Amino acid sequence: MSQFEPTEHPHRRYNPLTGQWVLVSPHRAKRPWQGQQDEPDRSQRLSHDPKCYLCPDNTRISGEKNPDYTSTYVFSNDFAALQEDTPTVPNSDDPLFQSATARGLSRVICFSPDHSKTLPQLSLSAIREVIDTWAEQTTELGQRFTWVQVFENKGAMMGCSNPHPHGQIWANSFLPNEAANEDNHQRDYYQQQEQALLLDYAQRESQAQERVVCENNDWLVVVPYWASWPFETLLLPKFKVEQLPQLNDAQRDSLSLILKQLTCRYDNLFQCSFPYSMGWHGAPFNDSDKTHWQLHAHFYPPLLRSASVRKFMVGYEMLAESQRDLTAEQAAERLRQLSDVHYTEQL
Amino acid sequence: MSQFEPTEHPHRRYNPLTGQWVLVSPHRAKRPWQGQQDEPDRSQRLSHDPKCYLCPDNTRISGEKNPDYTSTYVFSNDFAALQEDTPTVPNSDDPLFQSATARGLSRVICFSPDHSKTLPQLSLSAIREVIDTWAEQTTELGQRFTWVQVFENKGAMMGCSNPHPHGQIWANSFLPNEAANEDNHQRDYYQQQEQALLLDYAQRESQAQERVVCENNDWLVVVPYWASWPFETLLLPKFKVEQLPQLNDAQRDSLSLILKQLTCRYDNLFQCSFPYSMGWHGAPFNDSDKTHWQLHAHFYPPLLRSASVRKFMVGYEMLAESQRDLTAEQAAERLRQLSDVHYTEQL
Ligand SMILES: O=P(O)(O)O[C@H]1O[C@H](CO)[C@@H](O)[C@H](O)[C@H]1O
Ligand SMILES: O=P(O)(O)O[C@H]1O[C@H](CO)[C@@H](O)[C@H](O)[C@H]1O
Repeated sequence: MSQFEPTEHPHRRYNPLTGQWVLVSPHRAKRPWQGQQDEPDRSQRLSHDPKCYLCPDNTRISGEKNPDYTSTYVFSNDFAALQEDTPTVPNSDDPLFQSATARGLSRVICFSPDHSKTLPQLSLSAIREVIDTWAEQTTELGQRFTWVQVFENKGAMMGCSNPHPHGQIWANSFLPNEAANEDNHQRDYYQQQEQALLLDYAQRESQAQERVVCENNDWLVVVPYWASWPFETLLLPKFKVEQLPQLNDAQRDSLSLILKQLTCRYDNLFQCSFPYSMGWHGAPFNDSDKTHWQLHAHFYPPLLRSASVRKFMVGYEMLAESQRDLTAEQAAERLRQLSDVHYTEQL
Repeated sequence: MSQFEPTEHPHRRYNPLTGQWVLVSPHRAKRPWQGQQDEPDRSQRLSHDPKCYLCPDNTRISGEKNPDYTSTYVFSNDFAALQEDTPTVPNSDDPLFQSATARGLSRVICFSPDHSKTLPQLSLSAIREVIDTWAEQTTELGQRFTWVQVFENKGAMMGCSNPHPHGQIWANSFLPNEAANEDNHQRDYYQQQEQALLLDYAQRESQAQERVVCENNDWLVVVPYWASWPFETLLLPKFKVEQLPQLNDAQRDSLSLILKQLTCRYDNLFQCSFPYSMGWHGAPFNDSDKTHWQLHAHFYPPLLRSASVRKFMVGYEMLAESQRDLTAEQAAERLRQLSDVHYTEQL
């Protein structure tokens, strides 16, 4: 039997943040694709679209009129999945039919008044305003809720129904699955290693460079060793920080820069507006001891082969285990080779 | 504060098979949808398509020629995600960079020579042949592998690249995440209750009827109390059985019938070939004690509102927790109201 080669031979990798494994099948990228092709987003858009319900001065479905905003703009989601005044669910000790009270709220953040731009096309100062808004919202909602999920669904492929640059915030009275899972794994690691898991990890990745996409003094973007999605990345601080609002001025500026660089590389990969879901994970607000937590952002993009061919996480993946068709190192290499100047602005 | 009403008020439900929660937001089905629409599959197909690489007598991408088969037909996937002779991954005790050996194989099962039919359109005896093939394959592969994942990706929306009726089998030298998780939860339940979790559950659901879609003496289909996908179902035996090959003749016949009825209802819901991923979970083969296990099949269909509007499990769902827009009881009610005669065969 020959020697194990991670770029040749299928293997599994362990995600220490969630305790889940992923099946890596590096040779599989060679198979021909005869399945569904999605329409890539390469459209040119107006800076102000009279039919967009997120543009300044326009009227939303609810009948409310947006102000003539010039920076970011936050409003309550007219069709929130959670409400603040939901009655308490009666207790049940039946192990097969357990339900629990869920309260919360949901807000939309317009990143910019300019309908035609996405995050990578915004100026550094405009991105900095988005970061400040994320932080302010997290501070405000963290006073009333256990978990504040800041996220962005970008692109029609990710269920986003409006190309106007925007994200969402869902605040929860409870710790959702992913948060509880990351909390447990970070706590266990801290108890054993006396260091935050993702701070250790960032140091190791910054030394190895193998999976690094881009980096500055404060921040590091890697395709994590255990990535599931083809071009999944993890955005990590190189210093200890537990929650988004704790970032200081300089750290927010360097974050603006790395966000712009990462999202430009994404758009440059297949020369299209690259779809993804991204979001922030920081220490929950119900926990007095947060030392085991390290702030981070996940980017989960679905594209695999081209602007129109995505990875389907279906059958085997839903029933058994996530599976990927190239190694994390191969994906990082491809993203690293790209320019961090947006393809529409290159000469 | 008013009283809690599950059809009105957001709440969370617990999945005792996986230990995960799902957020239920029943009022959310009212929101308008302005996002992506998929092309529904209502095409008429030829019984034999000369360009299909799964039809009898045709040549596959590998250059191999399919036999002139008349029932089911099984062959090795030309682009398998797993291989049988993968070298062993060297041990590492680094908690941040863990990988593990993964061996296995992958096969394709054509359900029928008829290119134009899907499972609900096959005769009961043809469905019975599919069941027998699933069982034979499971027996054969279970002698060499720990886990045998039988599944079907149906429809382009589920990454299926060929409409010819077919499923897959991936055999694994390891226990994948979902299997390990269900194994743990079923074992814990058995230790506490001295009864198999899903047998208890089937009895309770059959009594309550609230979430039942269809049922016969041997089998029960429910939208599980903890369903994530809008019209997700769980197919459960009403008797104790751990693995697919253990089913006797009569139980396989009654299974053919309930499979036909369920998949007809699915197609009838939006009058289209209803996409889903489905698959079987039975006791793993590496475990001498299987008493805690109960055989079952999961159906995960993506459609939500119509033949062209799906549920996107994106941003919040990927970063925090699965979320659904109608209750399990509402989904079961809709499926129960439908005929179990296929819409193309109704007069
Ligand atoms: O094997 P297929 O049908 O080519 O591929 C499909 O099913 C596989 C198993 O669920 C997935 O990994 C692929 O992403 C999907 O496109
Ligand atoms: O809130 P939106 O953008 O209307 O909806 C989108 O994001 C939500 C949160 O991830 C998902 O639950 C929806 O399925 C998706 O379509």
